[in-house]
Amino acid sequence: MAYQEFTIEGRNAVIEAYRSGKTIDKLYVLDGCQDGPVMTIKREAKKQDTLVKYVSKERLDQLSATGKHQGVIAVAAAYEYAEVEDILQAAEEKGEPPFIILLDNIEDPHNLGAIIRTANLAGAHGVIIPKNRAVGLTAVVARTSAGALNYTPVAKVTNLAKTMEELKKKGMWFVCADMDGTLMYRLDLKGPIGLVIGSEGEGVGRLVKEKCDMVAAIPMQGNIDSLNASVAAGVLAYEIVRQRLMPV
Amino acid sequence: MAYQEFTIEGRNAVIEAYRSGKTIDKLYVLDGCQDGPVMTIKREAKKQDTLVKYVSKERLDQLSATGKHQGVIAVAAAYEYAEVEDILQAAEEKGEPPFIILLDNIEDPHNLGAIIRTANLAGAHGVIIPKNRAVGLTAVVARTSAGALNYTPVAKVTNLAKTMEELKKKGMWFVCADMDGTLMYRLDLKGPIGLVIGSEGEGVGRLVKEKCDMVAAIPMQGNIDSLNASVAAGVLAYEIVRQRLMPV
Repeated sequence: MAYQEFTIEGRNAVIEAYRSGKTIDKLYVLDGCQDGPVMTIKREAKKQDTLVKYVSKERLDQLSATGKHQGVIAVAAAYEYAEVEDILQAAEEKGEPPFIILLDNIEDPHNLGAIIRTANLAGAHGVIIPKNRAVGLTAVVARTSAGALNYTPVAKVTNLAKTMEELKKKGMWFVCADMDGTLMYRLDLKGPIGLVIGSEGEGVGRLVKEKCDMVAAIPMQGNIDSLNASVAAGVLAYEIVRQRLMPV
Repeated sequence: MAYQEFTIEGRNAVIEAYRSGKTIDKLYVLDGCQDGPVMTIKREAKKQDTLVKYVSKERLDQLSATGKHQGVIAVAAAYEYAEVEDILQAAEEKGEPPFIILLDNIEDPHNLGAIIRTANLAGAHGVIIPKNRAVGLTAVVARTSAGALNYTPVAKVTNLAKTMEELKKKGMWFVCADMDGTLMYRLDLKGPIGLVIGSEGEGVGRLVKEKCDMVAAIPMQGNIDSLNASVAAGVLAYEIVRQRLMPV
């Protein structure tokens, strides 16, 4: 299992977890507890948008694995990231040209989860996300991925553009989506391909876009600007699926 | 503008709004206010999952349009639903075969918003939702639709299966998605079509499925069960777009 939740118990341990930058998904606090360390924890929780639940001592005792919760239990996510190499190997083992989805700073955990779910069902061999800025693999991502996080490898890289360059040397092609691109049905997406999805607000960053071999346009007929990021990812991923399944 | 927010001010007005079944998206309550009527309002807010914000008197005075908020201001959504007839007419005016998306009890407002957004960009002439059970058009739906709610007409009907029957008499065909269906690329989706999307958990209901002329399968290669509902809607809607744009 690539994704697991674990608990952190006791005041110092929880404060330390926050200070070290761990993603805490949920915090249980003893109802009515107002002393200094607990207030510090609540401030951190607010800063990081942790879901806080005020519960009774009995409930905390039930939740506790150590019996030494001191009035606070944090729930954090542990995910074992894959390496980019693992993703390429998965493709090779299946005897398929690699199909990877790269996310350029997706910030909404629901979108990230939905995209990992799509990657799994569209037969992508893995997902690559950048280390900074973007959302990590939290409980919300795990839940919205509907279990896909346990099957589809997700790799985290320092510099997405650099990773793309390395993958290009190994024969991969990259396509990103933009309205000024070529109608997606007219592109050849059958080979070893990386599909780059931009962030919700700004689309694909300039440096990353420059590394793309193709720019695909999803036909748009309406009055508004763009599809939801996870819907756009789904539409593009399935255009790749169609071309691979139904060669003309 | 089809979608607007308005405020309801004062204790009795807010209690009355809850009792009449209005959807309250957000509730501002004077911080520290604990008397009987306010407690009643808070109970209703909890029952209906309204977002409650505790604010100062100054903030309430700012928000108030009437100056008579008595410590509570509710924010509700007003949406003018379209008629099914309006949707057909929109298609006729554009000289296009009707393309309608029907939602069989979508419960997640983010999914509903994303689907209305997709409907707009895929050139669907409207969306039909059932009156009961499903989520209505709240502020979350309006926001996730990214403005599409102001352009794409949404009609609310009592009985989805009955509406489908009436539309079939007018020459429409219906397609829903299910894994046991025909690979979607092999279906002819170019005519006047209604695309039926099932609920997140249960898919398309039996009565509604029986009214469908075609069952489309999205190819699935992964380990999990199904795509997110708004992603599935996007993939299917864009298969219709592809067939209409790129006739073989």
